[in-house]
Amino acid sequence: MMKALMLICDGMADRQVAKLGNRTPLEAARTPNMDKLAKRGVCGLMDTIAPGVPPGSDTAHLALLGYDPFEVYTGRGPFEAAGAGIELHPGDVAFRANYATVDDALVVKDRRAGRIQETGPLEAAIGQIKLRGADFIFKNTVGHRAALVLQGKGLSNEVTDSDPHEIGKKVLRVRPLLRTLERPQLLRAILTGGIRRFVGRRRRSTKTARLLNDFSRRAHEILKNHHLNIERAKKGFPPANYLLLRGGGVVPHLQPLQERFDIRGACIAAAALVKGVCRMAGMKVIDVPGATGSVNTDLNAKVKAALKALETHELVLLHVKGFDEASHDGNAAAKVKLIERTDKELKPLISAADFVVLAIDHTTPVTVREHTGDPVPIVIAGPSVRADEVRVYSERAAARGGLGRIRGKDLLPILADLMGKGKKFGA
Amino acid sequence: MMKALMLICDGMADRQVAKLGNRTPLEAARTPNMDKLAKRGVCGLMDTIAPGVPPGSDTAHLALLGYDPFEVYTGRGPFEAAGAGIELHPGDVAFRANYATVDDALVVKDRRAGRIQETGPLEAAIGQIKLRGADFIFKNTVGHRAALVLQGKGLSNEVTDSDPHEIGKKVLRVRPLLRTLERPQLLRAILTGGIRRFVGRRRRSTKTARLLNDFSRRAHEILKNHHLNIERAKKGFPPANYLLLRGGGVVPHLQPLQERFDIRGACIAAAALVKGVCRMAGMKVIDVPGATGSVNTDLNAKVKAALKALETHELVLLHVKGFDEASHDGNAAAKVKLIERTDKELKPLISAADFVVLAIDHTTPVTVREHTGDPVPIVIAGPSVRADEVRVYSERAAARGGLGRIRGKDLLPILADLMGKGKKFGA
Repeated sequence: MMKALMLICDGMADRQVAKLGNRTPLEAARTPNMDKLAKRGVCGLMDTIAPGVPPGSDTAHLALLGYDPFEVYTGRGPFEAAGAGIELHPGDVAFRANYATVDDALVVKDRRAGRIQETGPLEAAIGQIKLRGADFIFKNTVGHRAALVLQGKGLSNEVTDSDPHEIGKKVLRVRPLLRTLERPQLLRAILTGGIRRFVGRRRRSTKTARLLNDFSRRAHEILKNHHLNIERAKKGFPPANYLLLRGGGVVPHLQPLQERFDIRGACIAAAALVKGVCRMAGMKVIDVPGATGSVNTDLNAKVKAALKALETHELVLLHVKGFDEASHDGNAAAKVKLIERTDKELKPLISAADFVVLAIDHTTPVTVREHTGDPVPIVIAGPSVRADEVRVYSERAAARGGLGRIRGKDLLPILADLMGKGKKFGA
Repeated sequence: MMKALMLICDGMADRQVAKLGNRTPLEAARTPNMDKLAKRGVCGLMDTIAPGVPPGSDTAHLALLGYDPFEVYTGRGPFEAAGAGIELHPGDVAFRANYATVDDALVVKDRRAGRIQETGPLEAAIGQIKLRGADFIFKNTVGHRAALVLQGKGLSNEVTDSDPHEIGKKVLRVRPLLRTLERPQLLRAILTGGIRRFVGRRRRSTKTARLLNDFSRRAHEILKNHHLNIERAKKGFPPANYLLLRGGGVVPHLQPLQERFDIRGACIAAAALVKGVCRMAGMKVIDVPGATGSVNTDLNAKVKAALKALETHELVLLHVKGFDEASHDGNAAAKVKLIERTDKELKPLISAADFVVLAIDHTTPVTVREHTGDPVPIVIAGPSVRADEVRVYSERAAARGGLGRIRGKDLLPILADLMGKGKKFGA
């Protein structure tokens, strides 16, 4: 049985940086282990989503697991909820929720309720809310963050956020999206989908908006009177007295990896979004204590966990964070250093499986400090690949590789085929 | 604010020519300025529409502005009409029209009415035609050419041409396309769209065919009795006594560039079709006197206009003609010469904006004298690109570039992303 390890380095790809002599951080860094993979394997450029489209973490990982993000992705909520361990069903509608602080006029004073940590009792209280028309599942994730899932018939994600995304503004009424559209957009919605479909969509989004407004009111009443918040107020901490909702999305049906490729997969990641995507793809999510997702994350523990997971799984996805943070800080030197450190830590992995894929979910240039749509370099190393002449792992070297330029959603089918799991189309 | 200039050289790409020592005209020509762009930028090959598909001028420019031509294009008519300055609305149906000469039996004697030029009074007379069921807008374009637009409910572009496309044949009755299909095609139309949709399509196409036949009859009556034609006949010129209709298409809804990419665009072109596409994309169309679109076009005036347009627009598309004509003439030496002359004229532009894109809409080999589906070379030069090692601008050199092989519709998203206008998909 062939085994494969997929290393995904979050935001490691970059653009040329003047301070680095017009090299990218990957080009400037000494990376003997990554280069060894490039020598052994076949390289290429990958548009994780599509050319020129900056990927999010969720959409990028959907693509890297073989799904078409344009088909399955409607919003971040479901992946956050799956990351929190909520069992989801296709058709559920999920939202991200923030514990926030509002005043009596519902004006937001703190979008994170003083980065509150001890939210267990609040979660339990919110969990008691029952409304006709849908079932509500509410779960805390990390710190002030939580996920809200609506289950039932006739629901929609086409509603606006209640989160005003700014301090000093009043919380927003959730509104059906199709009522807030500008005239040309509205016309397009009717023209492309037909009037009947449009009316159905509007009915579902109106119902969902009403439910969310009712839920928000009830949640506010419960939270503002909760003893934990009364105690916080006494101590001078901002009370967590409102739940701001955003990022609504419909839970898609994702054909499990095991069913599509006959591959048993495991995932090791710190980010809830990445965990959520992997869980929805039917992979086992392995939690590693100490893996915090920051620059100081305990990569060594994750490497060990990956080696262990390879004993019982055919595909192990290891998501390595830190580069994206260094990029958001605009610190090229720190990024180079982190790449060099990571390269050392990854050494035990470069021959740990039959196939090793080294990939990046998106480019995050230190000069831009945001995800961009530039293609990322990838390598597939393994016994059955047509190794090319690329000798180093970098953005520009990979452009001359044997894979050419591929899409993110094609990576897993290519890997599965190399592993002997390709499914013939035709006779 | 980043600015970009997009140079599109009509039909400049080619295949290897024996007479040029098996080089392409681009390889044979001395092009120091284009080569400078290649050195500074990232190169690649582009399938404007799709591999092996020879693009038209209209579909090529739709793709170059980021639209999927397979989605939005149903016929040339709407773009010709937009190029003529007619204000169009999604759902309008537009046709190309030719002033032609027919005899009393409606047999075509001259498809261009002796290349008539003075058609103003005829346009005014035709403009008086009113028929129940639709509004008619008629406008002359260049010489014997005109555009006809139908506005109203229940219209269709699924009708046949009235133009027999040959001298000596009788003008054709416009027929609903779905009545003229062979049985297997008809069956497929019913099976794929459903019977109800089929019936609706057939009703709309029947109505449109009837309207066009009525219009053609009225136009013929008006034209044959028009004093201008009576005078032409006296002078021995063929009268413009019939309007031949062809190239029917539905006006698509194109999301404006400004809305999709937050980019204010302007276009400088001689070709009505290119102008039409740009106008429908919401770009400002700048007319330059002397820009005729022939080999002798006043490129210098267009270059100056482009420089001026860059002061007030973020994206300026400059369409450079002539190469396509030289190719249609099969004259490799003339094409080489024109490429060298153009390279000189473009010199002021190669550092006129933050980003300069040098592209070609389609290959027109001098050996074929028609558009072909070969990919075209492109360069994107600018501060944020990962410059590659390509040193000259040509078909074969670009194939080794850092962009790999992309689609035409991906070019603008890539450029917008490099300009800092990328829109993240996902979170």
